Amino acid sequence: MRILGIDPGTINSGYGVVDADEEIRMVDFGVVSFSPRTSKEERLHSLYCRLTEIIARYRPDELAIEEPFVGLNARSAFAIGTAQAIAILAGASQQLPIYYYSPAQVKQQVTGYGRSDKQQIQEMVRIQLGLSQSPEPSDAADALAVAICHIQQSYLNRWLTNKG
Amino acid sequence: MRILGIDPGTINSGYGVVDADEEIRMVDFGVVSFSPRTSKEERLHSLYCRLTEIIARYRPDELAIEEPFVGLNARSAFAIGTAQAIAILAGASQQLPIYYYSPAQVKQQVTGYGRSDKQQIQEMVRIQLGLSQSPEPSDAADALAVAICHIQQSYLNRWLTNKG
Repeated sequence: MRILGIDPGTINSGYGVVDADEEIRMVDFGVVSFSPRTSKEERLHSLYCRLTEIIARYRPDELAIEEPFVGLNARSAFAIGTAQAIAILAGASQQLPIYYYSPAQVKQQVTGYGRSDKQQIQEMVRIQLGLSQSPEPSDAADALAVAICHIQQSYLNRWLTNKG
Repeated sequence: MRILGIDPGTINSGYGVVDADEEIRMVDFGVVSFSPRTSKEERLHSLYCRLTEIIARYRPDELAIEEPFVGLNARSAFAIGTAQAIAILAGASQQLPIYYYSPAQVKQQVTGYGRSDKQQIQEMVRIQLGLSQSPEPSDAADALAVAICHIQQSYLNRWLTNKG
């Protein structure tokens, strides 16, 4: 099973591709970035094109998207909503199942602690994927983290289903 | 010049097509609606497909999008952000120039009063487009109103430029 994790943002959107079979393995990660001076139309359109390319290249089975922090103000929530919609559309256009995780869920699942900081997430992502260095920048690490979170959640759900 | 006005929403998105030459003329209007039970992915994907069809059918020169009311809470702002992103992407994919107007700007421009209610907007849209009946539902009237607002704003800008 191959998961594409996405941490959508209006300026920087992280993505991380993780394979999960016997073990979990990092395939690729990165960030789609724009200058704040780029128009909103151009950013959203380019983000859609880039995510569509990434999906075409890596052919993930499922998408895991990090939802925004609930304490955002309306302006930030609106902006993040626009970026999330683009990620959803890129996945939905390819009929990919999409799963959503809050920052607290990702932190809890990946580091065992719902309020861990960016460095702790980067370090746990590094360890779990057996990387020699922490993935940089943190948006890419967050995208790998949401992919790992989804894989662990899927394992857990499968285990609970088999047990039931 | 043909304008496509869009009032994006997560359940109901209004659209209105208006031609502006010697006078302004309504071409079409309607609402793209979904059941609240439809998944977010399906709604966003279907909205994108429907708006893309509408753009292909009417070939507008410019898009005018109503921005959300600033007093929204974060959850509503996030949801409206997702719908607006889809409208932007549908326009940007066809290289259409996109203009944004706040509800207060639309009301001020179309009714002469920034705090007019839905009925007043519907009635002024009816009068300005020479329709026998008020456009229904109000989401479609709002979309026609933002198109009219953009046309009036364009006339004003052109007049100011020629004068200067």
